[in-house]
Amino acid sequence: MIDHEKIMYDCIKLAAKGIGTVSPNPLVGCIIVKGNKKIGQGYHQKFGEAHAEVNAINDAKKRIKSLKGAGLFVNLEPCSHTGKTPPCVDLIIEEGIGVVYIGTKDTNPLVNGKGIQKLKKAGIKVFSGILGDHCKEINKTFFFANKHKRPYITLKFAQSIDGFIALNNFKSKWLTSINTRKIAHNIRAFNDAILIGSNTLKTDNPILDCRLSNNKNNPDIIILSGKSPINYKARLFSVQNRSVYIYSIKTNKDNLVRENVKIKFIKSVNGMINLRIILRDLYKEGINSILVEGGSYTLSQFFKQELFEEIYVMIAPKIFGKGISSFSDFHINSINSMNDLILHDFFSSGNDIIINYKKYR
Amino acid sequence: MIDHEKIMYDCIKLAAKGIGTVSPNPLVGCIIVKGNKKIGQGYHQKFGEAHAEVNAINDAKKRIKSLKGAGLFVNLEPCSHTGKTPPCVDLIIEEGIGVVYIGTKDTNPLVNGKGIQKLKKAGIKVFSGILGDHCKEINKTFFFANKHKRPYITLKFAQSIDGFIALNNFKSKWLTSINTRKIAHNIRAFNDAILIGSNTLKTDNPILDCRLSNNKNNPDIIILSGKSPINYKARLFSVQNRSVYIYSIKTNKDNLVRENVKIKFIKSVNGMINLRIILRDLYKEGINSILVEGGSYTLSQFFKQELFEEIYVMIAPKIFGKGISSFSDFHINSINSMNDLILHDFFSSGNDIIINYKKYR
Repeated sequence: MIDHEKIMYDCIKLAAKGIGTVSPNPLVGCIIVKGNKKIGQGYHQKFGEAHAEVNAINDAKKRIKSLKGAGLFVNLEPCSHTGKTPPCVDLIIEEGIGVVYIGTKDTNPLVNGKGIQKLKKAGIKVFSGILGDHCKEINKTFFFANKHKRPYITLKFAQSIDGFIALNNFKSKWLTSINTRKIAHNIRAFNDAILIGSNTLKTDNPILDCRLSNNKNNPDIIILSGKSPINYKARLFSVQNRSVYIYSIKTNKDNLVRENVKIKFIKSVNGMINLRIILRDLYKEGINSILVEGGSYTLSQFFKQELFEEIYVMIAPKIFGKGISSFSDFHINSINSMNDLILHDFFSSGNDIIINYKKYR
Repeated sequence: MIDHEKIMYDCIKLAAKGIGTVSPNPLVGCIIVKGNKKIGQGYHQKFGEAHAEVNAINDAKKRIKSLKGAGLFVNLEPCSHTGKTPPCVDLIIEEGIGVVYIGTKDTNPLVNGKGIQKLKKAGIKVFSGILGDHCKEINKTFFFANKHKRPYITLKFAQSIDGFIALNNFKSKWLTSINTRKIAHNIRAFNDAILIGSNTLKTDNPILDCRLSNNKNNPDIIILSGKSPINYKARLFSVQNRSVYIYSIKTNKDNLVRENVKIKFIKSVNGMINLRIILRDLYKEGINSILVEGGSYTLSQFFKQELFEEIYVMIAPKIFGKGISSFSDFHINSINSMNDLILHDFFSSGNDIIINYKKYR
């Protein structure tokens, strides 16, 4: 007897190997079984390259001549349309696969059940929804971005118990422990891009890479530039193999010419940036997920405009008394449990606490 | 075979029945066994009345004539001195108990191992340290207060994620959920007294009772009174069966005469109250543990003077942006992990998070 959930779980683990290299495509892993034995596996490795199903089928055929009657497990519905590669559904039918086990449907309107229909029409048995929630979770940013035409947004900050992200004199770098920073770098690795305001670039001069994470694919960088000029000697520009998007309200586009830096001019109304326009543009650039790391002004803008899906708060075991608040450019006049956040997860890291909230619905 | 840990655990549960009524005495439960069977039990019920051992022995003798050779379990070393009641050790010897199982030694210099010695001299077998950590924990405030001659202090506050205990307009009563407030009332019940500043009395007019807790013994009240006059019609004065201690820097002691209210004059230096003097006085009044519930100024004074052993933070799933910080009369100039708090416990209550810290050593 084969354990369908166990094999689907292995597909998800395979899929996760694509983190950092496949977006804006989804993370997909595929396993092929025959006679209760695993005979091949593969995952989508790089945007524009072969899909998971193709890699798994090729892997299986190294070991076995015919895949007639074999079972194919995949965490996402196989594609039925021609994109950068031919439809996987056609290949599955061609190879004579007998049963297809699917984690979740692809909500992309070009697929959305059409892949399943085509398989069924060809006489292939299809079971879908195996570990459905897990399979939705691993591609949540892909599904969200394609539905809303803007990236999935996570706000992240580290603070003292009493809610300060920095001392007023800024002598408070690295509030949290090294282990908590490792966790923060892993959260970065799950995002296509990290966003900061130009003031944070100036005061913190952060590298914003994933050096403490196991995943070495550094996300792209987005800088929202107000009036303060960008220092192109800042450390984050030295990181290779990533793009930097600068959205500037200033018309003079500096005269920087660098391959991986894109400077875009945006209008501001009363000094305020319209985040929705920027997010739509970033989606077109292929950014499905953004981690907003501050500072306080930038976090406030996203919070005010309700442009976020999750919040990660890292709480260091310190009391500051006074300092810079996490959302200082925002305030409410009365409390209303209607817009409470949803507590999603929480855990400790040494004496630090990490809390993950999701936005109220 | 008897399970020593199980029986000691039952002693602790019995002891806990005395919460709210035995302080400044310790919480003590006692179980007597004979031939692997429990034959009696008792606990210390009220300050000044019979000790747990006496109650357990009397209970056992209802069922069995002679306790010769019986085993006696007790979470705290039996007393060997004459206080409000005669020494328990003498009674144990008299009754011919064969074995005594003790949770932890009594650090009171009048006992501190002397009870154990006396039992051993009388030929009784003594085993101590059974569930020692649990037995120390349940009487931590008793041990602490007697060692340091001041009450064990817990700071407690509820705040938004970004560290505000109230909105600037104070339209923010009951930040946390009803379930979290129940937990807060249970924490109250573990303390001999609740302390607030006179400003909180004025702005919040709190009742400060345990109405949501299973334990209906309301702690005493301590009010630190600055310049604002005390409103004797405030709601907390209406609660029966508890004392209210008011420490005032004003010389005119009002002309209130009420049985359960004690007004004490204290000197202030530059408007600052010397908390150590007050705490020493409260210890003499029989207060072993205090829950400091605010407001921000009062919490800051205790934090600044390092007069606290634990902190409970209740975090509601809200972002305020601006408001009143939990420790606004305090600040640091640089971070130093040397004085980090120790994360002791954390748990969720609906969408709220409750974090318990202990002071760095």
